[in-house]
Formats: sequence, C-alpha cells, structure tokens
Amino acid sequence: MRKVAIVGVGMIQVTDHWDKSLRTLFAETALKTLEDAGDPKVDAAFIGNMSAEEFTKQKNIATLVSDFSGFRDIPATRVEAADASGGSAILEGFTAVASGLYDTVLVGGVEKMSEAISSETTQILSMAADQEYETFHGLPLVGAAAMLMRLYMHEFKATREQFAAFTVQMHENASSNPYAQLRFKTTLENALGARPIADPITLMDCAPAGDGAAALILCSLEKAKKITDTPVQIIGVGQATDTLALHDREDLLTFGAVSKATQKAHKMAKTTLEDIDVFEIHDSYTITGLLSIEGLGLSERGGAGMLVEDGGIAKDSQIPVNPSGGLKARGHPVGATGVYQAAEIALQLRGEADGMQVKDAEIGLTENISGMASLANIHILKRV
Amino acid sequence: MRKVAIVGVGMIQVTDHWDKSLRTLFAETALKTLEDAGDPKVDAAFIGNMSAEEFTKQKNIATLVSDFSGFRDIPATRVEAADASGGSAILEGFTAVASGLYDTVLVGGVEKMSEAISSETTQILSMAADQEYETFHGLPLVGAAAMLMRLYMHEFKATREQFAAFTVQMHENASSNPYAQLRFKTTLENALGARPIADPITLMDCAPAGDGAAALILCSLEKAKKITDTPVQIIGVGQATDTLALHDREDLLTFGAVSKATQKAHKMAKTTLEDIDVFEIHDSYTITGLLSIEGLGLSERGGAGMLVEDGGIAKDSQIPVNPSGGLKARGHPVGATGVYQAAEIALQLRGEADGMQVKDAEIGLTENISGMASLANIHILKRV
Repeated sequence: MRKVAIVGVGMIQVTDHWDKSLRTLFAETALKTLEDAGDPKVDAAFIGNMSAEEFTKQKNIATLVSDFSGFRDIPATRVEAADASGGSAILEGFTAVASGLYDTVLVGGVEKMSEAISSETTQILSMAADQEYETFHGLPLVGAAAMLMRLYMHEFKATREQFAAFTVQMHENASSNPYAQLRFKTTLENALGARPIADPITLMDCAPAGDGAAALILCSLEKAKKITDTPVQIIGVGQATDTLALHDREDLLTFGAVSKATQKAHKMAKTTLEDIDVFEIHDSYTITGLLSIEGLGLSERGGAGMLVEDGGIAKDSQIPVNPSGGLKARGHPVGATGVYQAAEIALQLRGEADGMQVKDAEIGLTENISGMASLANIHILKRV
Repeated sequence: MRKVAIVGVGMIQVTDHWDKSLRTLFAETALKTLEDAGDPKVDAAFIGNMSAEEFTKQKNIATLVSDFSGFRDIPATRVEAADASGGSAILEGFTAVASGLYDTVLVGGVEKMSEAISSETTQILSMAADQEYETFHGLPLVGAAAMLMRLYMHEFKATREQFAAFTVQMHENASSNPYAQLRFKTTLENALGARPIADPITLMDCAPAGDGAAALILCSLEKAKKITDTPVQIIGVGQATDTLALHDREDLLTFGAVSKATQKAHKMAKTTLEDIDVFEIHDSYTITGLLSIEGLGLSERGGAGMLVEDGGIAKDSQIPVNPSGGLKARGHPVGATGVYQAAEIALQLRGEADGMQVKDAEIGLTENISGMASLANIHILKRV
C-alpha cells in the first residue's frame, strides 16, 4: 500500500446557509480546498453525505457536486453511512490512493439540512437506526440516546452536572472556531436549565443541525512532499460495525465498534493511545460523547463523566478532546461531520488552528460514528 | 496494485418478493454467495443500493445487511450512484482488495422496490436526475429518456421497429434465465402495441421495477487460485461522469461517460473491443440500451438500431449483448443491477450460464450507468 497524505483542507462555517444550495455549498468549499493544495489535477472524488435525498430530493450527488466544482468527467463516489458518511468517504479516498488506482483525490462531506423543518429532521436522522425494530415503533434516534443516557446515569451514578460540563467545555472551545455554528460560551446553569427534548436529554445535550461542507485533497505521501511543506499523513485507518438494533447488543453502554476500529487504526499506525496529542470525537449527544471517550480508551468504563467534570478533556489538558467545539458546538451537518473532524485535526497538525491550537500537536485522531455507534470510523493523522 | 478475482457469485430471482424484507432478501443472497465461494472469512462488505431510504425508510444499510448476513463487526460501506450503485460498489470492493487493505470482501447490491406504488417509484427514480433544473419542473427520468428517444429517431431516422426489436431480443434471452423477472417471450406486434408511458416510450421500452439482490466474493487472484478452479479476474475497471443536467451536454445523443470509462477499462485490461466475447449493458430503457451500444463502440453513432434489427446482438452473434435478458427482461432492481451484471458475466466465463451460455466466452464486459449516463461504470472480467 502506498502512503497517503492530506495536502489540502477546506471548510465553510456550519450554519443555516439560506442563500446556498447543496451544490453551491459544496463547490465553494471544494474551490477553497483546491486552492489550499495549490490547484492540483484531481483524478476522482469521494463524497460523504447522509440525506440529500430527504433534504433536497437529490440522489447521485457525487456526480452533481463534482460537476459543479469544475470536475466534469472524473470518477465520483457517494458514500452513505448515516452520520459516519464523512469518515467512510475518507476511508474510500484513502484506499483509492493507497492502491495506486488514482494519484490525487478530493474527499468531501456535505449536508444541506436547513430545507427541512425540525420534526422532519428528527424523522430523517432516525433512519440511521433500525426502522423495523426501533423507529417504526416510535423510537427516534434522540429517544435511543435518551435511554442510553438514563442507563448510564443509573449504572455509573453519573450526574446531570457531568453531562452539562461536557456541553460547557464544547461551547468554550467553539468560541475560538471561525467555522463553528454555536460560537457562544455557556454556563452549567444554562446547560442544566435547557428545555427537555427526550428526558433526560435537553436541548443543550444535542448537537445542532446545520448546513455544512468540508473537503480534503489526498495524494501519495511522496507526491505530497513535493506539493507542500506541511503534509499530514494518514498513518492509520480503522472501520468496524456493531448491530444496528440496540436490543441485539450484549452491553448497551459499550461502543464496541469504536473500540474495534480504534485497535485496527492503532495497529496500522503503530501507535498507542499515549501517542495521540489531540482528538476530535463524535458527540452527537453528550452521552455519545462520553461513550466515545470510553470506547477510545480515554477513560475507564463509566469514568468519562468524572473525567470531563474534572477538566480532563480541556484544550490544555493531557487529552484535548474537540478543540473545535465538537459536534455539540462546531455543529453537526451529519454526512459532512467526519470530514470536518479530519480537516480540523489536519489544521492542528499543521499548526494553523489559531485560537484552537493545541500546543505541539504531532499526532491526532478522529472518531466518527453512525447513530449509536452502529458503525465507527477511526483515522489517525500525523504531521510529517 | 494486487490482482483481484471473483470467487463467489449469488443471485436471487428479480420479482416482487412480498415475503422478504430488504435485510432478508440480502441475507439469503449473501449466504448463497458465501457457499459458492466455499465459506471464506469475509473482511469487509461493500453494498450498492439506490433508494432504501425512500422504499423502506432505512439508511445505514451496509451495517444492517452485514449484521443480518452474519458479519456482525466487519467494515461496511454503502455506495449510492443512483442505478449505477452496484457497479460503483464493485469498484470500491475491487480497490480495497487491490490496495491490500482487505483480503476478502463481499460486494453486494440490493433493492426492495415493491413497497412503493408506481407513481412514488417514478418520483424516487427521478432523483437520479438534476432536481433543481429538471425533476422539480416536471421532467421525470422517463420523460428525459423519451426526449432522447424522440431526438434519436429524428436525428438518425431510427424506427419504432428497431426499438421493438431490442425488446423482443431481451425477452427471448430472459426466457432462459432462472433469475429473470420477465421470463416470457414477446413479439414485435406486442412491443409496438404496448401502452404509452411517455411518448414515444411505451411500457415495453422500460425495464421493470422489482426486488433483487446479488453478491460477489472478491479476493486477491493469488488466493483465488487456491480457493476455486474457476476464478474470474477483474482485469479492467473504469469510471467516469458526465453532467447531471442534460442541458449542460454538448451532444445529447452521446454517452460520453460510457466512452471514457470504457477507454480506461480497456487501458487497464490491455484489451480492445474485439477481445470481448460477451456484454451486459444498461438498458433501463430501449433508448439507453441503444446509446450504450454506441458508447461502448459496438456500432457507429446512430447505427445501434439497425444493428439490433439485423440480429447483430443475439446470443449467437459476434457481439452477444445481455444474454441474461438485460435490465429490460432480467429486471432492474436499480441499486443491485450492476452486481447482477457482473454475476451474470462471471457465470458466463465459468461456463455455468446454462441456457444463456455464450460459447467459449473468455472475456466479458459490464456497463452500468446512472440515469442518462451521468455516471458510468465499466468492468472487464476474464476467465483465468
């Protein structure tokens, strides 16, 4: 396998882009990304997107957004793995370059969510869960998350304050992120007093819906060194799945797919947890954030709440988690999220993360999951 | 890049499977495919599917169908490229094995269309076209095909009889195919007298909607030779795109993506058209069948109608096209179609195509497109 590196990064702020359609949202980001990479010839595109068919009645979007980004005839692949679509698209782009099939590829994630009203959005996002056994019977995804949160609180004597502390940390981080959707700081009182969505989950436990697009240019490491002084190598990839239906799991409070994918990525990267300087994890809800922290091995089982409450994931801690603000405050344009995470880590490793910069970050990790971790994508990136 | 071969093939008959859900439809096929390959350990799954979200309100189906096929924790990727999804999934599976990331992968295509009524199906399939510039304004995909057919008849003085001859040939072929949806023969009179759908397209110019699932097991050629006496190597792959919106094309009657993808595949395979013994092409409508024949170079521009009428694509001709009956009569479970095509060619090259067998077939080609060839996948397969 050829070594693969990121040589271009581009993002647009996550927000309601009323003035931009799906195609213009993506094209604007793609052009920024190409410019960042010095306008290389692109051989193929890999696009992560969850729900263009529901939000904009459009399929076949890899062809569409490639065309509108100026690549009229290149191979184009759309990958869908619910809110892990972005991470899955990176894996496909990585594999294509690693195999030698293509030299330079564009990996993008895009989601245009502002076309739907919020009740529709809940239904659309819930298609990530098992329709026949869960959603059809009235359990939306946020309901599943609420059950996991209640079980977590019961099992580990976790407190509402611990979840609220996670929220406060994410908003604190996002306040320095020009691409973030929710750039305001918040307080424990605000987080605890927010209106209920699916008890015990409140509005402040949920990542916001928003429009977003992010992209990367990948090429062989050999070529990358000629193009840029700051190539970021993808040194480890790992993907694993779990049952879609929660009732089929042996342990509801373990994100098994996250652990398995992490092991694979570390094995390929020849790293251990101690080598990782900065993390971007998948906190679609505060509970998925805590379970992700545990799945990655950043705390023991049931210990993530205390870790967060003690300031253990802050930007200047030993394990800086989500300096971008995470899904909670950077925003969660579902199918694009995995690409935002990798773009943010790449900027960290290039030392270009400005107010979000983690000092001396050399190796970073992204964790991007679908639903309640039915699929997990782990990528480990390194400054070369 | 490692050489890649098909070592297992499985299909289910295309029809209305009222008694099977999406997951059981796929699992049944996956188990047949695994058995055909001698039950190898599978490292990852790549699933082509166009519209599970519309037909069954389910996303994330790569995870779902992997789980229900007995692979609870493997990496799983769903690829969507409208009705080219199956061919795109094969390309992703091929690349993954070629790169060395995985040794053995399952590539599947599945579509469960019988849950929808036909007016819904028309809307769903039309999401393959440009929503903002075409579909929203009242042009469904079949309307776009009708405009191309009328233009083709005008431009090349093609006759209705030529299109009807294509239909008759496909039904003749499908009558020997145990997996075909429409296994009855038909006549020129029947084809010419069928009820109009979007003039000049009649019911007999359209591929039928149906439920279907097909799968392949891919592994390195080296390993394939140890597993089976009849490995089928994927010697060439090619993918290309065109504009999604028809008004952006310079020439409406040229499937440019098909030609470009074919050139790439021939280049990798070191083949020319003369080397190919059998073809499976994408005849979602009779007009897309004729334009595909021309895009592949099997006839000159505007000459496909005459070629077909003269019996030039029959099973015992120099260029046997769609011995399976093609999309027209084998059926077109949209996202699964590309995998059916490769499965059918693999059986041809193994000499196991029974009543459909093309004599001494050593090299075969599949052509799988989205909509009006906005994306094209070409695969060239060879008996080893």
